[in-house]
Amino acid sequence: MRTIDWVDGEIVLIDQTALPHKVNHLHIRDVDALIAAISTLAVRGAPALGVAGAMGVALLTFGGGAGELIRFEAARLRAARPTAVNLAWGVDRALARLDEGPEAVLAEALAVRDEDLAACVAMGARGADVLTELLGDGGKRIMTICNTGGLAAVERGTALGVAQTLFERGELTEVIALETRPLLQGARLTAWELQQLGAPFRLAVDSAGPFLLARGLADAVLIGADRITANGDTANKVGSFSLALAARHAGVPFLVIAPESTVDVATPNGAAIEIEDRGAVEVVTFAGMQTAPEGTAAVNPAFDVTPAELITAIVTERRVIWPGRGQTPAGQIAELSPG
Amino acid sequence: MRTIDWVDGEIVLIDQTALPHKVNHLHIRDVDALIAAISTLAVRGAPALGVAGAMGVALLTFGGGAGELIRFEAARLRAARPTAVNLAWGVDRALARLDEGPEAVLAEALAVRDEDLAACVAMGARGADVLTELLGDGGKRIMTICNTGGLAAVERGTALGVAQTLFERGELTEVIALETRPLLQGARLTAWELQQLGAPFRLAVDSAGPFLLARGLADAVLIGADRITANGDTANKVGSFSLALAARHAGVPFLVIAPESTVDVATPNGAAIEIEDRGAVEVVTFAGMQTAPEGTAAVNPAFDVTPAELITAIVTERRVIWPGRGQTPAGQIAELSPG
Repeated sequence: MRTIDWVDGEIVLIDQTALPHKVNHLHIRDVDALIAAISTLAVRGAPALGVAGAMGVALLTFGGGAGELIRFEAARLRAARPTAVNLAWGVDRALARLDEGPEAVLAEALAVRDEDLAACVAMGARGADVLTELLGDGGKRIMTICNTGGLAAVERGTALGVAQTLFERGELTEVIALETRPLLQGARLTAWELQQLGAPFRLAVDSAGPFLLARGLADAVLIGADRITANGDTANKVGSFSLALAARHAGVPFLVIAPESTVDVATPNGAAIEIEDRGAVEVVTFAGMQTAPEGTAAVNPAFDVTPAELITAIVTERRVIWPGRGQTPAGQIAELSPG
Repeated sequence: MRTIDWVDGEIVLIDQTALPHKVNHLHIRDVDALIAAISTLAVRGAPALGVAGAMGVALLTFGGGAGELIRFEAARLRAARPTAVNLAWGVDRALARLDEGPEAVLAEALAVRDEDLAACVAMGARGADVLTELLGDGGKRIMTICNTGGLAAVERGTALGVAQTLFERGELTEVIALETRPLLQGARLTAWELQQLGAPFRLAVDSAGPFLLARGLADAVLIGADRITANGDTANKVGSFSLALAARHAGVPFLVIAPESTVDVATPNGAAIEIEDRGAVEVVTFAGMQTAPEGTAAVNPAFDVTPAELITAIVTERRVIWPGRGQTPAGQIAELSPG
């Protein structure tokens, strides 16, 4: 079961707002429906958004219309979630082949999908290897936030993909999954994925994560990323930063697991990242019920920024970046792209 | 309107599970009903629990029965919330006068109540003075977690009482109130109190607190306490520790505001504090609805421990303790109690 795919001229994706209660599929036939699905988080997760962006451009090209109109609509799609760089990256990759016609654009979108499938397998293995290097053989207790499993990508995930690889290797003692307020991606999605896998896990409220680290209940923290800047600063689901502080305080490794498409060397550092504020409704209501008093205002950053100096390692499908050893994503680009 | 009081032979308290939607009062006539009210958090907050403990013993004594039975029942009441020391302290204060008869026990319980009224006024003024000492004159932006207002005490609160004093002095720019998962005391109770006061505030999810501090959105963090040990380590609502780490990282003062009755010099440090785990139901359901998949296990510490070295100052009704200047609660006890 793929989180997002291209079937008979449509984007078919699992509606993540219905999980864990129901596994519904949405059939997306136009870019407005895709933007709506992105806004409501029916599809979310940086890698999945990259695929969605590329496939959205394919939808536009098959719909016909002038190149200028397609570029205008693609720009709307590109801006649907500003913090995750992958969405813009996927749109841009598909748009680059616009002049070659719809089939070429679709081929590019399918390549983005297939590369994600391979990248998640590679990240899982490399991330598990890094943990073994840091922690030794044997069972490992992993803390994570938000959802970075198959539901955040196409078939396997990023940070949760590493936990899955550990599980397959017989080296996963437990995942402590943080619920991830306000939209509970940890409680709804990560818990569901771990249950499907049969992997051992417990859920906790987000603010318990730092304390559980201080009490020695996890051996490593693994997160995904929405944008990794040139210096290694990393935007990810709000709460990640507090885990990085607590991991450092507890002497526990803090790893970022993300594909190269999340690395954005055009953004110099975390201060330059636009942080999406998703408004008060998500915070002051639950399932349509008012929880705070009527009229309560909220500040609701969907993401935060973890400075590179708090990150032990950034693991992609191609490399491991160690900020503590003076490495940065930008500094290594030359090595990766000889010539 | 008092949060808890003694009226015509009964304990009358605001049912905090019904807020912010309704202001209902519970009339408590026996210790079983009081233990139930404590367990469901109909009454909560360390100072209010101290009053509840003392008044509970008064209920027992007016109910008659042998001293041994009263002590047995009082021990059950004393254990209803293990982390907050005030409950045990209130029970013990009233029990100490058991031999003098019911009226003496009630007089002691009413003294506990009246001392709390005065202590909260004093803590508000002293806390506001400390903030002016640290931050200068002018408007201040305060971050806080859980509820430490009048609803946590009798009439005015501890940490939120300081914000109230700042507001009355015209020096409160904004409170950022964290919602406080899993039971949303911040969203339900603190937001309600601030709205009643007419004070400016915004709500945020707990895990956004550390990031908002890093981005400079608050000038100080104020928390209450459930237990302050001899060395200054402080147990408080889970999430407090992550705010202390983030406040240190951001260079922002982190203050604990609590009455002397919360200081427990018999407990040497935070490692010795029993942390109540309230089970999975609060985490995996909301308003009776399952949010995580059926069968999801949880780890649900209701409190965490902030080490003294992360605390700028502990403010009580009698003193200010500066852990960074080598002061500890135990070390100052001699100065407070001459002879």
